[in-house]
Amino acid sequence: VGFSIGYAETAADGRRFNSAVLVGPDGALIGKYRKVHLPGTVEPRPGARFQQLEKRYFSYGDLGFPTFRAPDALGGGVLGMLICNDRRWPEAWRVLGLRGVELVCIGYNSAAYDPNGGEGEDAGLRTFHSQLVAQANAYMNATWAVAVAKAGDEDGSGLIGGSCIVDPDGRIVVEAQTLEDEVILADCNLDACLQGRAKMFNFAAHRRPDSYGPITGQVGATPPD
Amino acid sequence: VGFSIGYAETAADGRRFNSAVLVGPDGALIGKYRKVHLPGTVEPRPGARFQQLEKRYFSYGDLGFPTFRAPDALGGGVLGMLICNDRRWPEAWRVLGLRGVELVCIGYNSAAYDPNGGEGEDAGLRTFHSQLVAQANAYMNATWAVAVAKAGDEDGSGLIGGSCIVDPDGRIVVEAQTLEDEVILADCNLDACLQGRAKMFNFAAHRRPDSYGPITGQVGATPPD
Repeated sequence: VGFSIGYAETAADGRRFNSAVLVGPDGALIGKYRKVHLPGTVEPRPGARFQQLEKRYFSYGDLGFPTFRAPDALGGGVLGMLICNDRRWPEAWRVLGLRGVELVCIGYNSAAYDPNGGEGEDAGLRTFHSQLVAQANAYMNATWAVAVAKAGDEDGSGLIGGSCIVDPDGRIVVEAQTLEDEVILADCNLDACLQGRAKMFNFAAHRRPDSYGPITGQVGATPPD
Repeated sequence: VGFSIGYAETAADGRRFNSAVLVGPDGALIGKYRKVHLPGTVEPRPGARFQQLEKRYFSYGDLGFPTFRAPDALGGGVLGMLICNDRRWPEAWRVLGLRGVELVCIGYNSAAYDPNGGEGEDAGLRTFHSQLVAQANAYMNATWAVAVAKAGDEDGSGLIGGSCIVDPDGRIVVEAQTLEDEVILADCNLDACLQGRAKMFNFAAHRRPDSYGPITGQVGATPPD
């Protein structure tokens, strides 16, 4: 088998990244990704019950959103990775899509409560969000997605589950049923990406990059008033 | 009441656009949008049972994705519009999001079969796609979305329904139940956008535009091999 796994990486220059790798059946590295979308804050938020300090302890990923050709033993498809919060950002998926991705491997550790102190976000709503973004972004990029949770109790705090395998139509093919250890399996026929890519999401025919300029900028792009 | 409605526009210079307007309770024009994502082909596809020739009969929208400040009589929020196929393109939603949108008005006429001749896309799957993209893009931009179908039979061909009002958490608050004429209603508290905008989707804090450059280009951005 091949696998994708996340880890805390210390680079040669001492920077720390939230990283993931793809490894082939021969144990060779297929590719590496460094998380771009670090949530949370640099400084602890005074008085907050939970702290989310990923921006403090990690550097922003500097590899962009690369795709990799899988070896024949893994089907020869085009693979990409996203890490946790990345999956909520359509820009990340779109760059993978533009680079021909056919299966996106995602690992996530997501609190079952809102670590930013938001109201009303329980485990049910947060699991819904997690699956919703995997489903829609898979559909909009005509790719498979495999989203894998570290679920259940971690040092007394709950993490959502909801691990799922999503087809290029955005449908959940199989999903984890519990917050315990589980293995879920699906046959992912990469040819299922072809229809979306050739028709509805034929990027070359239908995207309009001339209208997308504000996306490479930040907020404040001529809001009204 | 105010309203949004789509129409075929002939511009002063003779160009034709697939357009929509927002109109306030006083009858004044709040804003206009011209559809950017025209599906289909310029030339008829030989032998195809259905033709989708929007690229032949319309020009690409040249107004970008503007947002508009609603008058106080409509709640004073920030409104945007998308037309039909636009709703499947996360770039369109993101530009509206960057411009502070709080409610996106969408009209669509979507065939209950795949007009591009794809396999396996029945009315159920196409309605699922339509709602999925409205839900996820509303969530990822912390905005309300109101997606309205022209549903049912049109000259002997079926159109999907699935009109829905989606909250900034991506949840369908209310949806049409039939393919007939229906009115659906929801109270859309625009303050429900604030939590997503301040926390998970605080664009200024968490977006990474330096990694988004390929989005303003087209396919071919260094795919593997």
